[in-house]
Amino acid sequence: MGFEAGPVGEALLAVDAADPRPLHEQLERAVRAAVRSGRLAPGARLPSSRGLSADLGISRGVVTAAYGQLAAEGYLVTRPGAPVRVSEAIRGGQARPAARSLVREFAYDMRPGLPDLAGFPRHRWLRSLGAAWRSAPAARLGELDPRGVPELRGALAEYLDRVRGTAADPELLLACTGFAQGLSLTCRWLVAHGIERLAVEDPGWHQHRLIAEQAGLRVVPVPVDAGGLGVAALEASGAAAVIVTPARHFPTGAVLARDRRAALLEWAERHDHLIVEDDYDTELRFDGSGVGALQGLAPERVLHVGSASKRLAPGLRLGWMLAPSWLTWPLISAKSVEDRSSEVLGQLALADLIARGELDRHLRRMRLRYAQRRRALLAALRRDVPAAVTGDDPAGLFEALRFPPGVDEPALLAAAARRGVGLEGLSWHRSAADGPSGVLAGYANLPETAIAQAVRKLAEAVEEVAG
Amino acid sequence: MGFEAGPVGEALLAVDAADPRPLHEQLERAVRAAVRSGRLAPGARLPSSRGLSADLGISRGVVTAAYGQLAAEGYLVTRPGAPVRVSEAIRGGQARPAARSLVREFAYDMRPGLPDLAGFPRHRWLRSLGAAWRSAPAARLGELDPRGVPELRGALAEYLDRVRGTAADPELLLACTGFAQGLSLTCRWLVAHGIERLAVEDPGWHQHRLIAEQAGLRVVPVPVDAGGLGVAALEASGAAAVIVTPARHFPTGAVLARDRRAALLEWAERHDHLIVEDDYDTELRFDGSGVGALQGLAPERVLHVGSASKRLAPGLRLGWMLAPSWLTWPLISAKSVEDRSSEVLGQLALADLIARGELDRHLRRMRLRYAQRRRALLAALRRDVPAAVTGDDPAGLFEALRFPPGVDEPALLAAAARRGVGLEGLSWHRSAADGPSGVLAGYANLPETAIAQAVRKLAEAVEEVAG
Repeated sequence: MGFEAGPVGEALLAVDAADPRPLHEQLERAVRAAVRSGRLAPGARLPSSRGLSADLGISRGVVTAAYGQLAAEGYLVTRPGAPVRVSEAIRGGQARPAARSLVREFAYDMRPGLPDLAGFPRHRWLRSLGAAWRSAPAARLGELDPRGVPELRGALAEYLDRVRGTAADPELLLACTGFAQGLSLTCRWLVAHGIERLAVEDPGWHQHRLIAEQAGLRVVPVPVDAGGLGVAALEASGAAAVIVTPARHFPTGAVLARDRRAALLEWAERHDHLIVEDDYDTELRFDGSGVGALQGLAPERVLHVGSASKRLAPGLRLGWMLAPSWLTWPLISAKSVEDRSSEVLGQLALADLIARGELDRHLRRMRLRYAQRRRALLAALRRDVPAAVTGDDPAGLFEALRFPPGVDEPALLAAAARRGVGLEGLSWHRSAADGPSGVLAGYANLPETAIAQAVRKLAEAVEEVAG
Repeated sequence: MGFEAGPVGEALLAVDAADPRPLHEQLERAVRAAVRSGRLAPGARLPSSRGLSADLGISRGVVTAAYGQLAAEGYLVTRPGAPVRVSEAIRGGQARPAARSLVREFAYDMRPGLPDLAGFPRHRWLRSLGAAWRSAPAARLGELDPRGVPELRGALAEYLDRVRGTAADPELLLACTGFAQGLSLTCRWLVAHGIERLAVEDPGWHQHRLIAEQAGLRVVPVPVDAGGLGVAALEASGAAAVIVTPARHFPTGAVLARDRRAALLEWAERHDHLIVEDDYDTELRFDGSGVGALQGLAPERVLHVGSASKRLAPGLRLGWMLAPSWLTWPLISAKSVEDRSSEVLGQLALADLIARGELDRHLRRMRLRYAQRRRALLAALRRDVPAAVTGDDPAGLFEALRFPPGVDEPALLAAAARRGVGLEGLSWHRSAADGPSGVLAGYANLPETAIAQAVRKLAEAVEEVAG
């Protein structure tokens, strides 16, 4: 076997002491071939001559000679003090387009789920990560308790009990990569245990349906009115589990009425059924009237799932589950096989952020900011889109706008998108065939000036569609 | 409705202007009840008087009066400049044990999968995260391209082509939360498409079997010899897909022979079958002879899965998949519903780390360190455990030790564990009922001195079991 470059791999750069050709020439041929075939892309970094000579077990002079020749031939670009790279001029065998996003980008991104991304406390997050690293044992990076790191489970249990009125046990708290994974694991457990029908709110978040159906469940829509989920209809649905947003229904904002809360828990108790509580943004009420979590009232009937997506940022992919004791270990075991555990550094940073009270402070700042942006949106709508009927729910990240029958929803979404305004349609989150035409307009991720501009674009879109 | 605390939730702290009792007294009662019920745990942080008064819409004086009274009664502890907390002396209704780890802790943790956790480049990681944050748009925290951020896909495609000889397209590269999730998504796709039998290496990593079986696949073990997977036996197995570790078989270290590489690709080509390539640690060969990835030879037949677990740390939960074009979009779609995308900050940091050449430098440092630690392990074994037969595979994170028939494997593992030495049994990774008795001893995460101590404990354990 010849001497071959460890980190580069035999397929790319190899020299063979037994080969009669000079080593530098062998190396040159190998690089040329790799570049021509596209294996070394234009702009790709080559190992330093010191590193490569060490890896190949040849003298550094051989490598510098080869690099020099290849630079002369135009394959490589060498600059003093800079890494050796493949010339950008070279076009290898394989096309390599710049990576494009699968997520449509809008000048005015008003998708309803977005918090203020520019408001993410980056410096506090880095500080917390650094601090957590100084205090946490190195073993945290390797031990992978499927439930998550104890620092986070402890901090979250305290936070959720204090802020959401849950009855959380850090031993039974399970960190996951967001609500979606939590529900995916749960739905697969339901299917594996012979449960076929899962009830969802109608209207309700369309991801609930997508996730349940990918897991193989049959989804049963249950109507929602001003009092939240209709428990009588749930009773009639024959479903053995239900997903609800009791503290603030998505997308109507309805709070589950007190008698319905009691009836829902009674339903689960009587039939031994499961309630999945999607607690997505309750801390974001501007009027300070967030109702406590259902889980606190019936920990053995309610699977409480929350996440950092709307409280901090979706990109953290950090969620948490408070499961009934009988469901906790199956979920921990499924999570352990599915992906071992959730990412550790973000858990440590969030735990420190919570312990410092920075999450409370961040949420207080965001409540004030979102209230302001909502006022700006409503004012702009009154001025420019009087046809739009808004709700009366001083909370959260978006406003639901309803339009008179004349305004076709898909046409409106398309017309707005053409003007750079990204919205979601009310019908996306509805199982029933008919219902009010309207859009969900997120305001949390846009400054007031941009909100005013976006609403003017929306006004043009409405005019185009209605006229 | 009364005035209730937004971030605290009605279930905890509420005051009602209509209630005849003074507001401070109502607040005191609410806190006492919450503490007694265990809803506010000993040591739990209360909101600042300023914050709470704002949330409740009452004067700050009312809150400070209530806090003062409760401190006098012993419920709360207040110190100037420190947050108000529930007294540690209080024992609420709910027991709250300190969170224990589900991962058994050992004085000498020699589990085979662990890299040097103390060697993780923390400062470089934080620097890269900070730098990435300065350059990446805030939208990265919210847009959630299911494939991962373009920065990482571009950097990884270049790195893998250069170091592993793959043919990677950043457009088709999918970031996942480690090998486990990548295989979980793939196995569920296989099941959904009517494929029932998945071939695995025997011996082989036991997680391959666990993950495939949780997804509902029937696992078919295929014998491995010094030349790696037996392709003739694979042909006879009737499986439509296979998981292999061609660059370095786990746990024997065998490299898939050249003729078998060709035969394996021919098998996939002829039957239109899928090869899943588990490329877990090829950069960690000390002799610089890592073979290139199978994927580079047949990108439309091989699903290449790698991760940062052994290259950096398992806690990052960062993996990547290079899928055949026909399988890429189903996997992206499944990932998108399963958990939207992988965590963004780690992706940005890793992309920057790779672009700076820090990953190459880290791996070069680790290769030298692991080679040293392996030498220390082998020397200690020769001295203290002459009965142990070691392999000749200068690579990776662990050594497979075989013992004469007299040494019972489960008894040896138990005896070692009693002495604080954590190992894995060869039989854990074997489907065949019989085979050599032995253990996998990880050396990468222990300094030389600890390795020598652990081997002495192992010697005692062997003596206890054999004698």
